Amino acid sequence: MYLEEFNVRFYETDALAHVSNTVLAGWFEAAREPIFRLFTPELDLRNWPLILATYKMDFLQQIFYGHKVEVRTTICRIGSSAFDVHQELWQNQNKCAVGVTTLVHFDFKTNKSKPISTDIVEALQKHLKEA
Amino acid sequence: MYLEEFNVRFYETDALAHVSNTVLAGWFEAAREPIFRLFTPELDLRNWPLILATYKMDFLQQIFYGHKVEVRTTICRIGSSAFDVHQELWQNQNKCAVGVTTLVHFDFKTNKSKPISTDIVEALQKHLKEA
Amino acid sequence: MYLEEFNVRFYETDALAHVSNTVLAGWFEAAREPIFRLFTPELDLRNWPLILATYKMDFLQQIFYGHKVEVRTTICRIGSSAFDVHQELWQNQNKCAVGVTTLVHFDFKTNKSKPISTDIVEALQKHLKEA
Amino acid sequence: MYLEEFNVRFYETDALAHVSNTVLAGWFEAAREPIFRLFTPELDLRNWPLILATYKMDFLQQIFYGHKVEVRTTICRIGSSAFDVHQELWQNQNKCAVGVTTLVHFDFKTNKSKPISTDIVEALQKHLKEA
Repeated sequence: MYLEEFNVRFYETDALAHVSNTVLAGWFEAAREPIFRLFTPELDLRNWPLILATYKMDFLQQIFYGHKVEVRTTICRIGSSAFDVHQELWQNQNKCAVGVTTLVHFDFKTNKSKPISTDIVEALQKHLKEA
Repeated sequence: MYLEEFNVRFYETDALAHVSNTVLAGWFEAAREPIFRLFTPELDLRNWPLILATYKMDFLQQIFYGHKVEVRTTICRIGSSAFDVHQELWQNQNKCAVGVTTLVHFDFKTNKSKPISTDIVEALQKHLKEA
Repeated sequence: MYLEEFNVRFYETDALAHVSNTVLAGWFEAAREPIFRLFTPELDLRNWPLILATYKMDFLQQIFYGHKVEVRTTICRIGSSAFDVHQELWQNQNKCAVGVTTLVHFDFKTNKSKPISTDIVEALQKHLKEA
Repeated sequence: MYLEEFNVRFYETDALAHVSNTVLAGWFEAAREPIFRLFTPELDLRNWPLILATYKMDFLQQIFYGHKVEVRTTICRIGSSAFDVHQELWQNQNKCAVGVTTLVHFDFKTNKSKPISTDIVEALQKHLKEA
């Protein structure tokens, strides 16, 4: 499991005095950085190897300003050229949101998906979510 | 169907020179404003009547800077206290993304869901997506 | 003068139930798009010709959700390789914010500023702010 | 001096493959949280005590994805009901941006500024920027 902790930023709240639901996609993307580094250790933007195909977010509890949040990231499916990432947002011992994101190993030059190498599959497997 | 058109903003792109996937949740929220007005014609923030329970986004085509985008919004399910909104993002005659969002009629003071009135159900039905 | 009008988006508010001050830099950037097109009519991202050197924002009135805003953009200084853009944010006949941004004609490949051509200077002069 | 360190988030980049200038206002706001706590230790959103009057940002170097950034925050002016905050953004031993923000001690109920108490003035003075 990958763990990433950060403070809620004031501008991430909205007029309901809680964190805007629109913020979660960005937080979860930020918490996937160690996964990006499996595919491109130098985070090479000119040869970026991944594209996002889909995400789904479930909001369970409101998230508030003034308390740290933690994102817990695991892998929940590994296919030949794509994989799913499972992420939970915790605040004050409450699971506040859950997201599942499908990422595709992708070549932006040919606009096509690519098989994931055995090395990376093994690295992803170390973070497989237990059922 | 509700239609909302706007320009891509430069800061909504990311280092891959396309629109960041994190932007879509915000665009789709903005395009739901006419639905918010069914529940609160004055958009009264002190008595806001809706909370978001879940959203799912599918990304079909990259979205680029320099061309207008259009969000097409319909209703795809109406329950007793919740409903689902179906939204499509179009650019240059391409359907680039599809989202489904579940909204709950909600009382922030009691922290509980509330039935949707018959009047609002009828208004929502006028925007039901054809199967 | 360039005019750009848009709706406040819900996620652009913050917990004080007004528009977050952090949003203005993005709105003003979006409203400078016609100026970008003077330098690159096709908005060519691979040969982007401008870099931002500085901006200053004064906040005069709170900006609220539920009412359209208008950005009024003029040029207030033209130098040999840089120029200043003056922008006002209006809502409900109130001037709510004023910004001045310095943009530099820039070559990202050599990392150096470049003179502005006579043609573009003339085009900018048509939008000079009256003193 | 207050120090705040964080990772650049992927969505904070733009199509020029560097951090968007629009992000800085948010980062600097986030780094002012210890100052907010001087005025409201519980970060009480219902009685928020500060409003932003102005900010000015100078961009000295491009900021890139993949390297941590640090915000260094000091106080550079203390008036009777307002004060100025000086902030620097550092990445890889480079000073990349400098911002000065004027904050006003404010009562949102009466819509008026308020004197800053002696206790808070003393706390702010501990973070005064050396000339």
